[in-house]
Amino acid sequence: MSTQRLRRVLPILEWLPGYGRAALTNDSLAGLIVAIMLVPQGMAYALLAGLPPEVGLYASIVPLVFYGLLGSSRALAVGPVAIVSLMVATTLGEFAEAGSAGYLAGAILLAFLSGAILLGMGFARLGFLVNFLSHPVISGFSSAAALVIGFSQLKHLLGFDIPRSHLITETLTYAAAHIGEINPTTFAIAAASFAILLAFKSRIAPILKSLGLGADIADAVAKAGPLVAVIVTTVAVWLFALNQTASVSIVADIPAGLPPLSVPNLDLALIEQLLPAAALIAAVGFLESVSVAKSLASKRRQKIDANQELIALGAANIGASVTGGYPVTGGFSRSLVNFTAGAVTPMASIITAALIAMTVMLFTPLLYFLPKATLAAIIVVAVANLIDLKTLRHALIYDKADAASLIATFLAVLTLGVEIGIVIGAALSIVLYLWRTSRPHMAEVGRVGQTEHFRNVLRHQVHTDPKVLMVRVDESLYFANTAFLEDQLLARVADRPEIDHLVLIMSAVNFIDASALETLETLAERLRDAGVTLHLAEVKGPVMDRLERVEFVESLGNGRVFLSTHEAARELTGMTISEAAIRVV
Amino acid sequence: MSTQRLRRVLPILEWLPGYGRAALTNDSLAGLIVAIMLVPQGMAYALLAGLPPEVGLYASIVPLVFYGLLGSSRALAVGPVAIVSLMVATTLGEFAEAGSAGYLAGAILLAFLSGAILLGMGFARLGFLVNFLSHPVISGFSSAAALVIGFSQLKHLLGFDIPRSHLITETLTYAAAHIGEINPTTFAIAAASFAILLAFKSRIAPILKSLGLGADIADAVAKAGPLVAVIVTTVAVWLFALNQTASVSIVADIPAGLPPLSVPNLDLALIEQLLPAAALIAAVGFLESVSVAKSLASKRRQKIDANQELIALGAANIGASVTGGYPVTGGFSRSLVNFTAGAVTPMASIITAALIAMTVMLFTPLLYFLPKATLAAIIVVAVANLIDLKTLRHALIYDKADAASLIATFLAVLTLGVEIGIVIGAALSIVLYLWRTSRPHMAEVGRVGQTEHFRNVLRHQVHTDPKVLMVRVDESLYFANTAFLEDQLLARVADRPEIDHLVLIMSAVNFIDASALETLETLAERLRDAGVTLHLAEVKGPVMDRLERVEFVESLGNGRVFLSTHEAARELTGMTISEAAIRVV
Repeated sequence: MSTQRLRRVLPILEWLPGYGRAALTNDSLAGLIVAIMLVPQGMAYALLAGLPPEVGLYASIVPLVFYGLLGSSRALAVGPVAIVSLMVATTLGEFAEAGSAGYLAGAILLAFLSGAILLGMGFARLGFLVNFLSHPVISGFSSAAALVIGFSQLKHLLGFDIPRSHLITETLTYAAAHIGEINPTTFAIAAASFAILLAFKSRIAPILKSLGLGADIADAVAKAGPLVAVIVTTVAVWLFALNQTASVSIVADIPAGLPPLSVPNLDLALIEQLLPAAALIAAVGFLESVSVAKSLASKRRQKIDANQELIALGAANIGASVTGGYPVTGGFSRSLVNFTAGAVTPMASIITAALIAMTVMLFTPLLYFLPKATLAAIIVVAVANLIDLKTLRHALIYDKADAASLIATFLAVLTLGVEIGIVIGAALSIVLYLWRTSRPHMAEVGRVGQTEHFRNVLRHQVHTDPKVLMVRVDESLYFANTAFLEDQLLARVADRPEIDHLVLIMSAVNFIDASALETLETLAERLRDAGVTLHLAEVKGPVMDRLERVEFVESLGNGRVFLSTHEAARELTGMTISEAAIRVV
Repeated sequence: MSTQRLRRVLPILEWLPGYGRAALTNDSLAGLIVAIMLVPQGMAYALLAGLPPEVGLYASIVPLVFYGLLGSSRALAVGPVAIVSLMVATTLGEFAEAGSAGYLAGAILLAFLSGAILLGMGFARLGFLVNFLSHPVISGFSSAAALVIGFSQLKHLLGFDIPRSHLITETLTYAAAHIGEINPTTFAIAAASFAILLAFKSRIAPILKSLGLGADIADAVAKAGPLVAVIVTTVAVWLFALNQTASVSIVADIPAGLPPLSVPNLDLALIEQLLPAAALIAAVGFLESVSVAKSLASKRRQKIDANQELIALGAANIGASVTGGYPVTGGFSRSLVNFTAGAVTPMASIITAALIAMTVMLFTPLLYFLPKATLAAIIVVAVANLIDLKTLRHALIYDKADAASLIATFLAVLTLGVEIGIVIGAALSIVLYLWRTSRPHMAEVGRVGQTEHFRNVLRHQVHTDPKVLMVRVDESLYFANTAFLEDQLLARVADRPEIDHLVLIMSAVNFIDASALETLETLAERLRDAGVTLHLAEVKGPVMDRLERVEFVESLGNGRVFLSTHEAARELTGMTISEAAIRVV
């Protein structure tokens, strides 16, 4: 294996040899800031996934190291994220009770399966597949998922149990009907947490800056909102024993020590049941991860290798599955924090992992009194960023078909569930694209004045010959649009019996597939039966190469392939078919 | 409703008022010839579908009349066809024993459901959907179906029972293992039938013509092959009582009289089970029908309305379902015979229907001794035409992706079955198309000499500026290719740090969807972060209209939209970014 290839497969070889003190300082600071953010987030997302809080912390150790060794992004921060946690919750909700041993085993298996799928796709170089999720579909999916996630936290914010449902209306109806059961202390803790989080999110940085603090440090402090909320509310619960006096639900015992080694339960029946969900988790996770990685890499003119990313994320998930974790991916806000805090290499992630490991070994007793309402507030504030009205507004102005697939995905997720929703959205966006290309724009053209230019007869004052119909097709020709093409052309010819020649102008045709080729041959024959000769003009080089391979020109009979529309018009205007026969190529 | 609209909905109103004696003579002859062909074919295809022979005749009466009243084709001959019969057999084989009452009820329900689906699609104007089956997929499907059909008749040709299987290898293995059970008389009858059919197919017409008979009549006589085979073998069985002395399997009792009125069994559970197959039967049937209808219509400069065809075929199938028939469609060879025999209006079909009705009323006793081996031979000879190596050969030369989808469909039908096979083929052809458009051709261009022409730097001797990268994209931009576009462009920029300007030449871009728009905006931003300004050139009018609606140009920052590549090169060459800033639009 060449050194270059080895470096691509193990990107750590690229940066480690030249690693110096300056880089270590930068990476250490970034690693610390991400760790401060990740401890509460990790626990919160585990809660969202229906898992014990320590699982979120376990998923923030080994996966980060594995990604650090294999990932092609310098600044991606891997770990639990909101949408993947929601998908884990909805998947496992069908198989086991949240909190049960079977549920945890399911989460571990999901991590293993997603990891295996990502690795497999990486080795098969299938990274491109993820491109088939369009931006509007992702936007509709994210917005709907954010709503589902937000409302799923209502029970923790209000302090009474609400049955899990993917229907927000059901959740709200139930909550309204049982509003008398609200735990006022829990609700107050949630409100205080929101206040702290929102203050840190938008107020703290400007205030610190106005006090003369450097912008970098001010921004870094602003990221500590979740930590501050955790400390303040935990101390409050501990001081007043709110868990006993006011029945505030707390995190309670978190086992101390490094993550246990876990072996995924490779039960074939269970694998078969979880596989579709694992594939979707892998796809959505990869998509989120690779888009943030790309966005950060380009800021420093670095490259992201999608297939290497698949392998690195696959390894990270396998890592999660053998250390008691659950599916992970590169998170958007966390990676941005890592990047802006100065991370220059994946060493930052490795430092984050070391700090989280230290936390689970030493500090879990401090988290005993942490109220679940605080974690729920952290989730709600985090996912609020996912609600994306801008893309919808944009799509409504720009393209109705895109807006339709966004709204359809949004509604499908809210009414039918997360997994089905995104599948419907993806399928719909492909159907809309095919529909669009299946009805190509076609324009009859004529000569502008005495020039060699030919333009749409509907838009310009042009000269045409009643015996020669010239049509420009603005799309590559393939199976889904050949029938449309044929119908349109035959209808135009049927309507005008005086036509002797039909010239297809192919300047916008980038390829012709076998179905379209056959249609062109049939079209030539049908036109000939009707006394019309088919010609082509302005065929692109690569398209012509293929046509020549199958001797297409011969199937045109008396028809010819002209270099330019001008040449076609000059040769055919006023010429009879029998004369054309003499000049056949 | 306007007269014109009424005529489109009831095409009979278009031809009936002017119907004269000459047309009646033509239509009568054509109707007679088709009836002579249809009696044995109808019974044979019913046998293939696992149904009693009279069902094939019943399906050749009312459906023909309904199509005649509603169809937009003047020459289409509707009735039982081979592939649809096979699909009926494979579908019902899973639910009931061939020949049982439940099986017949299933066939009637399939006709009703396909009819309802066709009608629904027609009213919803969804005729275009069928275009998503590409020619190579249809070719692979037809060839494989022909093989499956052919080998399914082996039991009738050899005279011993072979368990039904969609795996040809299984059928062959079983037949080879039990070859000792062959019925020599049955086999001889089959061989004689083949001899007669093949002789009529290729020898009779030339011989008659050389004897001085008119070409039209000679061709018409040649179509009587099946009838002659039926007469010869039936008489032989009757004369020597071969059904008793040699256990030759015969058609035996066919109930005399018009088709019984039947009511489809609208059992919801059964409907749910049969619905997917009914949809496929509707789609395949419509496809076969509309392609032959189009081919015939264009020979006389007539038009086919796909949505009207859906309605007419839907009505024909509903008609089949209420008169003891099974799914029908327009047959390829039969319609061609109808057309060449001189049919000028659907009156020919109505005459055929009348003759078939007369047959079931009066002549069924004559068919008592008709051996099943003869019907099997008729099927085998008919489906041999479906084996299509030409399209494969063509595709292999012309386009590997198309050849791949043909072969995959062929293999999927042979190994997994007819229904799954065509679904896999259709999905694969769509995936291959998306794959193709997801990796658009991109060319860096430079100036040819001192001209205003810009060509691919890899193919031509051109002049380029090291600071200005000009790239032409040969595909519309949509979600599946935006990531590729972005990766390619960022990689090119990352490789050449001296670049200050990137110009995208959009002459082949017919549309930009919302995902691609967002990518272009992100790309502009990422390039800006890397010190490169993004410009566009040669944006088409409709594309530019949309971009202006969302104020895209502003997101280009210092970037501009140039009318031509020449203008972009002139303005940007040797210009620094700060100078460009002054000229921003």
